[in-house]
Amino acid sequence: MPDTLIKVDLAQSPYENENIHNRWHPDIPMACWVNPGDDFVLETYDWTGGYIKNNDSADDVRDVDLSTVHFLSGPVGVKGAEPGDLLVVDLLDIGAKPDSLWGFNGFFSKKNGGGFLTEHFPLAQKSIWDFNGMFTKSRHIPGVEFAGLIHPGLIGCLPDRKMLDTWNEREVDFIATQPDRVPPLANPPFAKTAHMGKMKGDAAAKAAAEGARTVPPREHGGNCDIKDLSRGSKVFFPVYVDGAGLSVGDLHFSQGDGEITFCGAIEMAGWVHMRVSLIKGGMAKYGIRNPIFKPSPITPNYKDYLIFEGISVDEQGRQHYLDVHVAYRQACLNAIEYLKKFGYSGAQAYSILGTAPVQGHISGVVDIPNACATLWLPTEIFEFDINPGANGPVKMISGAVDMPISPDL
Amino acid sequence: MPDTLIKVDLAQSPYENENIHNRWHPDIPMACWVNPGDDFVLETYDWTGGYIKNNDSADDVRDVDLSTVHFLSGPVGVKGAEPGDLLVVDLLDIGAKPDSLWGFNGFFSKKNGGGFLTEHFPLAQKSIWDFNGMFTKSRHIPGVEFAGLIHPGLIGCLPDRKMLDTWNEREVDFIATQPDRVPPLANPPFAKTAHMGKMKGDAAAKAAAEGARTVPPREHGGNCDIKDLSRGSKVFFPVYVDGAGLSVGDLHFSQGDGEITFCGAIEMAGWVHMRVSLIKGGMAKYGIRNPIFKPSPITPNYKDYLIFEGISVDEQGRQHYLDVHVAYRQACLNAIEYLKKFGYSGAQAYSILGTAPVQGHISGVVDIPNACATLWLPTEIFEFDINPGANGPVKMISGAVDMPISPDL
Amino acid sequence: MPDTLIKVDLAQSPYENENIHNRWHPDIPMACWVNPGDDFVLETYDWTGGYIKNNDSADDVRDVDLSTVHFLSGPVGVKGAEPGDLLVVDLLDIGAKPDSLWGFNGFFSKKNGGGFLTEHFPLAQKSIWDFNGMFTKSRHIPGVEFAGLIHPGLIGCLPDRKMLDTWNEREVDFIATQPDRVPPLANPPFAKTAHMGKMKGDAAAKAAAEGARTVPPREHGGNCDIKDLSRGSKVFFPVYVDGAGLSVGDLHFSQGDGEITFCGAIEMAGWVHMRVSLIKGGMAKYGIRNPIFKPSPITPNYKDYLIFEGISVDEQGRQHYLDVHVAYRQACLNAIEYLKKFGYSGAQAYSILGTAPVQGHISGVVDIPNACATLWLPTEIFEFDINPGANGPVKMISGAVDMPISPDL
Amino acid sequence: MPDTLIKVDLAQSPYENENIHNRWHPDIPMACWVNPGDDFVLETYDWTGGYIKNNDSADDVRDVDLSTVHFLSGPVGVKGAEPGDLLVVDLLDIGAKPDSLWGFNGFFSKKNGGGFLTEHFPLAQKSIWDFNGMFTKSRHIPGVEFAGLIHPGLIGCLPDRKMLDTWNEREVDFIATQPDRVPPLANPPFAKTAHMGKMKGDAAAKAAAEGARTVPPREHGGNCDIKDLSRGSKVFFPVYVDGAGLSVGDLHFSQGDGEITFCGAIEMAGWVHMRVSLIKGGMAKYGIRNPIFKPSPITPNYKDYLIFEGISVDEQGRQHYLDVHVAYRQACLNAIEYLKKFGYSGAQAYSILGTAPVQGHISGVVDIPNACATLWLPTEIFEFDINPGANGPVKMISGAVDMPISPDL
Repeated sequence: MPDTLIKVDLAQSPYENENIHNRWHPDIPMACWVNPGDDFVLETYDWTGGYIKNNDSADDVRDVDLSTVHFLSGPVGVKGAEPGDLLVVDLLDIGAKPDSLWGFNGFFSKKNGGGFLTEHFPLAQKSIWDFNGMFTKSRHIPGVEFAGLIHPGLIGCLPDRKMLDTWNEREVDFIATQPDRVPPLANPPFAKTAHMGKMKGDAAAKAAAEGARTVPPREHGGNCDIKDLSRGSKVFFPVYVDGAGLSVGDLHFSQGDGEITFCGAIEMAGWVHMRVSLIKGGMAKYGIRNPIFKPSPITPNYKDYLIFEGISVDEQGRQHYLDVHVAYRQACLNAIEYLKKFGYSGAQAYSILGTAPVQGHISGVVDIPNACATLWLPTEIFEFDINPGANGPVKMISGAVDMPISPDL
Repeated sequence: MPDTLIKVDLAQSPYENENIHNRWHPDIPMACWVNPGDDFVLETYDWTGGYIKNNDSADDVRDVDLSTVHFLSGPVGVKGAEPGDLLVVDLLDIGAKPDSLWGFNGFFSKKNGGGFLTEHFPLAQKSIWDFNGMFTKSRHIPGVEFAGLIHPGLIGCLPDRKMLDTWNEREVDFIATQPDRVPPLANPPFAKTAHMGKMKGDAAAKAAAEGARTVPPREHGGNCDIKDLSRGSKVFFPVYVDGAGLSVGDLHFSQGDGEITFCGAIEMAGWVHMRVSLIKGGMAKYGIRNPIFKPSPITPNYKDYLIFEGISVDEQGRQHYLDVHVAYRQACLNAIEYLKKFGYSGAQAYSILGTAPVQGHISGVVDIPNACATLWLPTEIFEFDINPGANGPVKMISGAVDMPISPDL
Repeated sequence: MPDTLIKVDLAQSPYENENIHNRWHPDIPMACWVNPGDDFVLETYDWTGGYIKNNDSADDVRDVDLSTVHFLSGPVGVKGAEPGDLLVVDLLDIGAKPDSLWGFNGFFSKKNGGGFLTEHFPLAQKSIWDFNGMFTKSRHIPGVEFAGLIHPGLIGCLPDRKMLDTWNEREVDFIATQPDRVPPLANPPFAKTAHMGKMKGDAAAKAAAEGARTVPPREHGGNCDIKDLSRGSKVFFPVYVDGAGLSVGDLHFSQGDGEITFCGAIEMAGWVHMRVSLIKGGMAKYGIRNPIFKPSPITPNYKDYLIFEGISVDEQGRQHYLDVHVAYRQACLNAIEYLKKFGYSGAQAYSILGTAPVQGHISGVVDIPNACATLWLPTEIFEFDINPGANGPVKMISGAVDMPISPDL
Repeated sequence: MPDTLIKVDLAQSPYENENIHNRWHPDIPMACWVNPGDDFVLETYDWTGGYIKNNDSADDVRDVDLSTVHFLSGPVGVKGAEPGDLLVVDLLDIGAKPDSLWGFNGFFSKKNGGGFLTEHFPLAQKSIWDFNGMFTKSRHIPGVEFAGLIHPGLIGCLPDRKMLDTWNEREVDFIATQPDRVPPLANPPFAKTAHMGKMKGDAAAKAAAEGARTVPPREHGGNCDIKDLSRGSKVFFPVYVDGAGLSVGDLHFSQGDGEITFCGAIEMAGWVHMRVSLIKGGMAKYGIRNPIFKPSPITPNYKDYLIFEGISVDEQGRQHYLDVHVAYRQACLNAIEYLKKFGYSGAQAYSILGTAPVQGHISGVVDIPNACATLWLPTEIFEFDINPGANGPVKMISGAVDMPISPDL
């Protein structure tokens, strides 16, 4: 049985666990060390460290302090790893904590983070998903059950000083272009809620003041929220510091491409079983700037899709230039309208797109002025037939159940 | 044997074939009529109407007059179709013209259309692909052969007057925001090179002056360049005019998500065998604004991918807000750098991404400020192993062969 | 465009076409010669040479003279091929003759060949299948339509004298163990209806008297009826004679594992586009006794199956020792009973199993005394839901249409 | 967290655990009861109850008393289940015991059970496989690692008295036809090593004397060893007694079609998480005689196969009539010869076929006199390229490591 190198107690605050951290900084001490070739287990909190509860109120989603996220397990030092290497990580298996077989999905209030469709769904809403072995379903969204494509939303190695400075400079300058935007353009360092792992005292305070927030994906990978980085996949990470410093967290039981609901996928506490090795000097050898990976041989194998198109003309009819973000939003809105014809509320339909193994494809990005994006909705996750037909849709969902919603205070 | 309702002679100018048109306009007369339930064949020109030749010079790619494209076969009238219906099209089969078993791919000069990576590849280049049954390979790009995911780049129904006006207004206003941009933001109506099918005289001249260009995908579908709209798929198109008026063209032997090379996929002349039926009032019944479709049960079944990530920080290190276009460009550039390590020129690598059944996924669009996009490169299309390993890449491609390039005049 | 090296005229008797033969013999002259690396097209008759007609009577299935089959196109000589080599054949594409877009399936009378379930279906029956691009459906079997997994039922190289003698000796001895069995255990050489290609006169007469019948698969491949040897696959054939002598025929638009209906799959006239190359001395290098192959990247991608089990206890309750043939027959009978609950006649259900891309798996062959076989029925080929549910099956097929049947004379 | 209704302690003899049984008999008391809709976990021993050890000697495989197998967990009573119902079992998840992350594979001595290739491998041999998350590899068979297709080899409901009598009569009569055969034709009831669960005293002794052995698959399912009955699949079992009486055991981490090594797949102790429901009267409604099932959406998704053909001519050149068992044996022998060219011992190659997710297809069963079977070997499980090529095979396996072998005493 592989060693569990980092344990988490869901009843304990993540701030009390020194093998957890919530900022990126090169000086965070390694939580533990392994050798190339080792396999081991890391337990993780959910990304909010347990703030969101298994209940029928969205108040916690409305009120969560997003400066606290993401609580990561690590960093794990890999002996012999040096800057310029590739750290090869085999995700041998991933699972939920046995005492926490559920996850949450939701949308933030526009005033507290928002999300992809925040103009359409500006208030906090939540759904709870129960795990039944390899499958999940929600008491808040009837008629849908599917196999999870379990993956870490966030995984990557520590940045070096130069990369950290690049990040901070780039993002702080960017925030300055619209400093009062709601939701904000980006999140600057924020010392007050930083958790710097084993760092203590002045060193910790200094690092906390400059530690990069964990929200965006960056050169090292990080919060990529790539649903296909699932258990069974093999990832090649750039190494920037001696020992690499691999951290992981933000586990998802399942997610659609884009993680459009932002809060988030189906978020869970759990564990990751992984094996590490090194390709010495691999970054230069292969010209690597961002992580690359190979998908798992074991993934939910849905095949029958209904595919929605969207183009880069927005809800007000305004033209955008080859803008895939706008095009994908239109494809998502089209899918939501479609699902509403079967009885779902808009919020339920939105949540399905955020949680199920939906694919989002960049279908055309050259045919000026319109990008074309497609959203692939697997039809097999529904307990009824959602294909179009001559007789029109049958309203299969009564509307008796909806997702909890919490008005802004 | 199904009837071939529209024939094309590749030795004849498409302007001489009145069953061809290259603009969208509600008044273009139907080239022919069919009944719901009928299946039939339409032949098509390649999108340039034969301008690009099977030779080893990119001069034609540099010099092509893009105001002439795309030459479409149709419109086909469907009896009983009325505005608000859904036209169901089964793409029963698609193939190349037996006397034209080849296709072209290329990048336009930045001065003549450009493309996704025009800042990196500003000059016209071309590759020619031979078809061997279900497979294709290029004499200009060694080491790669793959099965084609044949599809029409462009298919859709005629707009009505109101939709045409919306398009023209939206795009002309948009062009006005940067009228001198090279390449342009969009293409306005242009009468001189318009081909209005069977319309003649003053009516044709008037319609040509306002006919929408065929370049962008729009509400009706059109030039979506969705690689998965392949033979065997079933598409549901909105109907805007009596008879629907279905036109098709721009056939692709294969294409990667995004059609990033713009000129274009592997472009070919060919034929489409399709069957049509109607869902009366289907647009309102299903809340349809853009076409939806179901993928084919028969497609190239590549499974082993190497996946490249990109984030919305551009080549100059500038931050963009959740911009999937920028993120996908980075993923593409990352893949090109990787392939160069095996001996490919940058242009060859770019062409592989534009032609092979590459997937482009919208992986994360909420983690401010960075979008994350992934490019999925099927490893099985290469005649050698492109996976990363401890021994580093082996240069398998000698560089003796490259793609023709034509400097701007 | 590749050269068509062998043409067939469906209006002409195959006996009049000297590039056709219906026996295996080392002395049959090559119909044509190619070089390694060449690709070319061969046209073929259906296996009966056109005897079975597109009509609504099974008389032809009842009356066909099975000593005439199979009419093969070839042999094709490959320059440089020598005994002990492997002939590598890429099946680049396969299709129906454009003037013959239909195929037939049926069961022989028990008195004239029988079949897998001849005790249950002892009389001749037939169904006709129309091809619509990549799809097929039958006017005799409502409610089912599917994409074809097109393949040659029969392909292989000429035997040498020693192998021919082995075959004849082995099979003639075997027939002698039950010489009067109906249907027979095997088919001996039969000169009267032999077609020896370009051989003429006494040589042809002598060879005809000893030419091996084409019915069984043998060491060289031959009539393997492997549905997965489809277009896009790559086959490695043992070579026994100088020039290899590759022949092909018995094209199938689609077939289930086992070809249980015997007459046969969906049988058609058509063409094969292939490319050949050699692995010199490959038989010894790789220890090859029978052909090996790699499946196509492009095949109908059905995934949702309903799987039926069968064990080696026969219809009379008798125990057989690890007999997969008996077990698979039980699995097939179980599937037929199941489909009858939805309104199909037994014959229709049997035909579906023989024609659709059904999988037959050897699931257990060691658990004495019972073998276990499974039949995998793709649910997506049906126009209605065949999954079991709490409400029981709905009879979707009215029974108004059935397959033509012809009583024995 | 679901309840674990049956626990096993691997340090305890299964004979001491009254929720275990190793015979089929209608009078075995239910170990526990559940309601339709419940989900729950059952732990299981490996099929030998722990006799085979994780070491480097095959003595235990040689010496195991096969009259003791299979140790099953159950029977589980389902409230409301009555004869004629279908018991629907969702296999929600399956795993190894966390304190036993390994499995065994082997071949029995011909004198003690034998196996599919016992004439070729007549002595006991063993390999041990370690589990690394979703993957497995063996220290006795280098160069191969693969994802497991985890499944129960044995699962089914209790027979009623009539079915039990049918089984015993059928098999005892069959044994009588060759009573001295080694290995035997079948296994009769055998009281001495019977474990009748909670039954005690005279009732247990009587039942033990007539309880059916668990080795063969039968009408109720039982020891089907179907690799695709994996976690995520849904199975419909015939019910014969009130409460159904579902038992399960013989878990496999992975297996090839046929379980040709007999001892067995990759055998392990573990647990099954399942959910049960009922289709009342489902046997008659759907014409069900044997279980049917639907495959999992989550299975190892290997796609690149090398496929070996075999025909029903045996190793001595003797002809068999459409005998799929013989044909599959030839396909297996062909694959073994092939793998030996890369350096594997015959025993290692045989074990790979028995353990990896190999497919065995019944390809042709009508072309008299030869059946054709195909063995599909996934190429992706090997750490090197096993495809045939012009340069011949490279011996990648040194032969330094082989499987333990134990001569007969």
